Amino acid sequence: MSEATIPAVPVSFHRAEEDLPFVPYQDGITFQLLQVDLEVGLWVVRIRAEPGVAFQKHRHTGQVLAFTLSGSWRYLEYPEINTAGSYLYEPAGAVHTLIVPDSNEGITDIWFAITGANLDLDSNGDVETVLDAATVLEIYRAQCKAFGHPAPDVIGA
Amino acid sequence: MSEATIPAVPVSFHRAEEDLPFVPYQDGITFQLLQVDLEVGLWVVRIRAEPGVAFQKHRHTGQVLAFTLSGSWRYLEYPEINTAGSYLYEPAGAVHTLIVPDSNEGITDIWFAITGANLDLDSNGDVETVLDAATVLEIYRAQCKAFGHPAPDVIGA
Amino acid sequence: MSEATIPAVPVSFHRAEEDLPFVPYQDGITFQLLQVDLEVGLWVVRIRAEPGVAFQKHRHTGQVLAFTLSGSWRYLEYPEINTAGSYLYEPAGAVHTLIVPDSNEGITDIWFAITGANLDLDSNGDVETVLDAATVLEIYRAQCKAFGHPAPDVIGA
Amino acid sequence: MSEATIPAVPVSFHRAEEDLPFVPYQDGITFQLLQVDLEVGLWVVRIRAEPGVAFQKHRHTGQVLAFTLSGSWRYLEYPEINTAGSYLYEPAGAVHTLIVPDSNEGITDIWFAITGANLDLDSNGDVETVLDAATVLEIYRAQCKAFGHPAPDVIGA
Repeated sequence: MSEATIPAVPVSFHRAEEDLPFVPYQDGITFQLLQVDLEVGLWVVRIRAEPGVAFQKHRHTGQVLAFTLSGSWRYLEYPEINTAGSYLYEPAGAVHTLIVPDSNEGITDIWFAITGANLDLDSNGDVETVLDAATVLEIYRAQCKAFGHPAPDVIGA
Repeated sequence: MSEATIPAVPVSFHRAEEDLPFVPYQDGITFQLLQVDLEVGLWVVRIRAEPGVAFQKHRHTGQVLAFTLSGSWRYLEYPEINTAGSYLYEPAGAVHTLIVPDSNEGITDIWFAITGANLDLDSNGDVETVLDAATVLEIYRAQCKAFGHPAPDVIGA
Repeated sequence: MSEATIPAVPVSFHRAEEDLPFVPYQDGITFQLLQVDLEVGLWVVRIRAEPGVAFQKHRHTGQVLAFTLSGSWRYLEYPEINTAGSYLYEPAGAVHTLIVPDSNEGITDIWFAITGANLDLDSNGDVETVLDAATVLEIYRAQCKAFGHPAPDVIGA
Repeated sequence: MSEATIPAVPVSFHRAEEDLPFVPYQDGITFQLLQVDLEVGLWVVRIRAEPGVAFQKHRHTGQVLAFTLSGSWRYLEYPEINTAGSYLYEPAGAVHTLIVPDSNEGITDIWFAITGANLDLDSNGDVETVLDAATVLEIYRAQCKAFGHPAPDVIGA
């Protein structure tokens, strides 16, 4: 097929590291929201965590691809330790608690592409909060505003 | 590229209507589970509903493609009525209550491809149950067994 | 989570059978394009084929979900015959030639959800044409115009 | 829902940087294949490129998520320069030529999650080669063998 017949060659969407701010997610954790696809339920996010923090135990309803840039972390439920260059694939249905060891020096920096929702679980295993592309976008926009940044130009938002 | 260099041409997976039984899901509703992809979180299911039934209000964490084969139904939250030949696309985050009118004659028959989870909501909007590829597969296997069918050969299971 | 905190409950998108016309694709085949997601590469299409027609041999770069509404068809490369109520799942990489038997009576009617491209192959196995969400949308719009229909309201277009 | 009712909590799949070797892809480029999902058509790959190399112009049939770890690169067709921390989202249908500037010092290191096929285009815009999850897996296995590595434990293979 000649390229001339390709009806619409779409552009690509680039964000440099400094194009989107890191803002607080919870104590000791900041995040940068790079992309959402609200119809599909995709969210692409980068997390920076200080030593000793943890994320609430959650269950995923879709797949997660995770690439670690620096630092060290693991899921309480699995033995593998993720360090710089580690790749982690989490299928739909995975349930886990992300922990960053106290003994770390410096920041743990992780890039995630998440499809679907994180169902945050309470101690009974009941769903306490639903974190998905739409809710994360809302949190990111609110935190950017609260910390004096302009409205963030998240891909797909 | 010559076909000779294609490393592995995968087969396709066919299920005739009678290959997988319809079993009760709830009063007035039977279902046939055609496919699961447990890693992705996909489930392909066909539903047959008698007049007057409803599904619990739920929120989707991923996309739904729905094709109606016969009968009539709608979501309480939207005006459109699905009949034979209707196609419905539901983005991630959709919240709705499927109702089949009392006034229907005959069975309402719908084919769904669902990615992610149905978060069944109670009257406060809290998540009561999580229905996903893995839980639906478990329910389908249990109902096949309970109703005297052999272990069902669901694609991907 | 209270529903009040759900930031944006998206609507769903309904198309009744008569909302989008069936237009000629090739001799003996008409089609209705229901949805495209140009970014993801998804296209949802319904095909009506007369007895004795065939589609050019092609290779898929993504998954296909196919549900048969009436008639009879198969792939030249596989033995299974699809009839009303048949479900067929084709993984990425599948290569096949869709044929509708001469001996059929009446129309063969199939609903497909296709991700990625159909790479139409010539007799050497080389790629002759690339059929994807964008090209199918262009063909559908052109055929609707050529046959006197208004611009079709394809979901996602 | 109590966790006790979750039928199967799947494990996650971790690969440390040293678990899978970087092997030559073409002159000046090595790669590490982290994951394939042959049914979906997903391939997750990390590329290391020396200054001055380029990839053949290609068209994508699905989405690409790209995160740059070090160095500098761009597509000939777009102005944006990807450097450490850059995120790039390429929709289905994107057509481009990856170039790594001559003036770079050190290695350009990029992580990609690719769905569907790369259709490598000749100077007429015709499809010369199809690179997808299955073909990349075959190339990776062959190169690992050729360079004296054990059979690589690619996720999903």
